[in-house]
Amino acid sequence: MSEWCKENEERIPVAIDPSKYSHRLDLKGCIKPASRTRSVLLILNQKINIPSVFLKLWGLFKLKVCADGGANRLYDFFDGNEPARAYYLPDYIIGDFDSLKPEVEQYYRNAGVILIKQRSQFSTDFTKALHLISIHFNDASFVSQISQSKQENHSIEINSGIHDWYYRILGSSGHRESEKISLLAIGAIDGRFDQTMHSITQLYKLSSSASQFRLSYLSATDLIFFVPSGGVLLEYTADFREKCIGNCGLLPLNGPTEIYETAGLKWDVGLWETSVASGKLSSSNRFAGIDKCYINVKDGIVMNVEVYIDRLAEYI
Amino acid sequence: MSEWCKENEERIPVAIDPSKYSHRLDLKGCIKPASRTRSVLLILNQKINIPSVFLKLWGLFKLKVCADGGANRLYDFFDGNEPARAYYLPDYIIGDFDSLKPEVEQYYRNAGVILIKQRSQFSTDFTKALHLISIHFNDASFVSQISQSKQENHSIEINSGIHDWYYRILGSSGHRESEKISLLAIGAIDGRFDQTMHSITQLYKLSSSASQFRLSYLSATDLIFFVPSGGVLLEYTADFREKCIGNCGLLPLNGPTEIYETAGLKWDVGLWETSVASGKLSSSNRFAGIDKCYINVKDGIVMNVEVYIDRLAEYI
Repeated sequence: MSEWCKENEERIPVAIDPSKYSHRLDLKGCIKPASRTRSVLLILNQKINIPSVFLKLWGLFKLKVCADGGANRLYDFFDGNEPARAYYLPDYIIGDFDSLKPEVEQYYRNAGVILIKQRSQFSTDFTKALHLISIHFNDASFVSQISQSKQENHSIEINSGIHDWYYRILGSSGHRESEKISLLAIGAIDGRFDQTMHSITQLYKLSSSASQFRLSYLSATDLIFFVPSGGVLLEYTADFREKCIGNCGLLPLNGPTEIYETAGLKWDVGLWETSVASGKLSSSNRFAGIDKCYINVKDGIVMNVEVYIDRLAEYI
Repeated sequence: MSEWCKENEERIPVAIDPSKYSHRLDLKGCIKPASRTRSVLLILNQKINIPSVFLKLWGLFKLKVCADGGANRLYDFFDGNEPARAYYLPDYIIGDFDSLKPEVEQYYRNAGVILIKQRSQFSTDFTKALHLISIHFNDASFVSQISQSKQENHSIEINSGIHDWYYRILGSSGHRESEKISLLAIGAIDGRFDQTMHSITQLYKLSSSASQFRLSYLSATDLIFFVPSGGVLLEYTADFREKCIGNCGLLPLNGPTEIYETAGLKWDVGLWETSVASGKLSSSNRFAGIDKCYINVKDGIVMNVEVYIDRLAEYI
């Protein structure tokens, strides 16, 4: 059989035999964590331009972490509203602090926020934050040291202490069996392009079934997540789709691959070779399936879904 | 020899034997066309958020083309300044006109702008614009028909007339020998993520030596262009680098590849495997070479260079 592309009606019922997929993914669940216990909102260094939904998100996540200049953005978000600024305190600020403004650093230090400086230039602030989050959820002794230590940098070695700690506990048993950590990052996609692409690499790096994280990105325009191989049933309510989401794309950002089959997109494809260099990728597509859509790819792929951000706050 | 990564001083002299590169690229020339004759400013459908530099760019390019809703953005840019709006008229507006607002369409029609509707949903407005630009520069009979026809849609078949015309003249002799068309697109990178990635595919598609185009993207944060294999000497003045550019990245967006060698980056690498899935890519790098930098990659790669957009207007 050769490749095909089929245009569907705007709304079609989709029924998929469970033998055809290994993963079920709830679209709203990419934003709102199923369980608050192991959930993190990560704030990166871009202006917080989703005001209507940001405070709602804040309440949904257990842990709030700012990567370096992300703390500036949180601070600036509450410009002119000191009581709110003093209330919405992150749990951690981590990074090389090259971007962190002195007055912001001082403000959050005085407010009791835990600031961890890590100077190493061989990993990004994003990676440092990931390591910190992993340690936080997997090593109670870390949390206890951090909260008790009166030493500089909470007794964390200032160059790469977090990195070293992370690799020290990586081999230890237990945590890999646990429920995944739901991680939603904001400010990951809409800044400098190499930083955007660095964020995209994290989707691939954290995509293995052994990964502790389930990572998504939310920007003012997009929800972005990873679609693994093995068949994915992507579910949503008809109402959520009508109100909150628009176009979508399937983006082979780690090289040429094949979309074996989709069912429930406006333009469904099958046995469809896709790559960046050929220009053949599924963009400006949209959901036709009333409450679900099926995607089966040879290799994992990045998916973006346009979100109507101002309506989202009512639906999460 | 195995892979290496070396941290350089902030400013180093770089000297490269001409036998090591097949391409020379002037960084400023990625924005400002060397010759105005065959140059195009393409306006895509994102808010024009580079006001300080936009009007300067307008004067540098021979042809101005709006892809569909790009015309809305041009129109909106001159909100409250009717004389400027009436002066800064594009040469063409092309697309399926799904995004083009009726009042904008009417305004530019009345002003004598050439609007070409192309309904096909099997190519994007971006691709339609590329085909139109190619025809414009390569077929004088097209320009003559367009300006004389009083028929609807300038006698261009409304579904895929431009596409068909493009492929009709593609095989004809002559134009492939000519100087490349300098094409700078704005609004290509900072919108919906699948549209951003569609723009990136165009960098790869137009990268062959046979391509008529030399394409770059400019956003409020980045200049983005293609670095082909065969060794590239990237040149700039020390002054331009000091004033206008910041961080940079080398982004393997069509799959794993190898950076054979760089010289003149803050973090130079050699024999360096890079891929999105491994997370190993050169981001948050910067230029250390005083007035040049050398990049030799196994397969062509996307490069982004941070631009200080407000200073750029003085330097182009």
